[in-house]
Amino acid sequence: MSGGDCAMCGKVAARGDLWIADLLGSRAYLNEDQYYPGWVFVVLDRHATELWELTAEERRAMIEDVHVMAQALARVFRPVKMNYELLGNQVPHIHWHLVPRLAGDPDPGGPVWRTTHAARPLAPAERAARIAAIRQALSEPGQERAG
Amino acid sequence: MSGGDCAMCGKVAARGDLWIADLLGSRAYLNEDQYYPGWVFVVLDRHATELWELTAEERRAMIEDVHVMAQALARVFRPVKMNYELLGNQVPHIHWHLVPRLAGDPDPGGPVWRTTHAARPLAPAERAARIAAIRQALSEPGQERAG
Repeated sequence: MSGGDCAMCGKVAARGDLWIADLLGSRAYLNEDQYYPGWVFVVLDRHATELWELTAEERRAMIEDVHVMAQALARVFRPVKMNYELLGNQVPHIHWHLVPRLAGDPDPGGPVWRTTHAARPLAPAERAARIAAIRQALSEPGQERAG
Repeated sequence: MSGGDCAMCGKVAARGDLWIADLLGSRAYLNEDQYYPGWVFVVLDRHATELWELTAEERRAMIEDVHVMAQALARVFRPVKMNYELLGNQVPHIHWHLVPRLAGDPDPGGPVWRTTHAARPLAPAERAARIAAIRQALSEPGQERAG
């Protein structure tokens, strides 16, 4: 792990209340803001900021991690469409935004970034239940995982 | 190829003036709107809409395609950060938005979707030159490609 004062290096060094699971080369966390239910981060374990800084094997493991988490989220939230985004404009350490876009979405045809909203953190019990549901879905058979 | 009246199936069935290259399992096209210089689409050859519809081998080839195109764009446009997005809220057939975020970006810390702007198509000669530059960068040695 490197990256000096990188906020994501600090995040993946700990688990905390939002931690969901450790994957092949990344850790998954629930986004504290659950205005979009099921918004999850998949954060690379090591400090890297662009795909070309990874080996082919690291890219393969990364896309498998994104895949298994997306599939688990789909099982829990039944989205119309999953959104997968790797941006890093504010914190460049590789972290994916996985956002299930549900029926009843405030802007079904658009990206989530256009919908301004107040953050919607969950009460602790609800947060724990949501994380438990995602973990359960991760553990279900039929998760095709090329580890 | 399937997908009935899918617009992306129609797109990848042809090359056209915006075509850049055929990759392992996808075709790359310049976005007609070049307000963000270097915005490119990487469109999966076959009709699929979510990562879990692909085999592990298809996901591996897909992330390699995204990687080699991102690296080529970085060589041409020297971005501060690359953005990689797989959304599909309007057209679900898997297509990646690769957007080099340059110095002088209108909203450096934010996603591209918040910047409303008039579309900026290039004149034919400029478009051809931009595509040629990206192809040249794709062909340069040092492209680590796990085909």
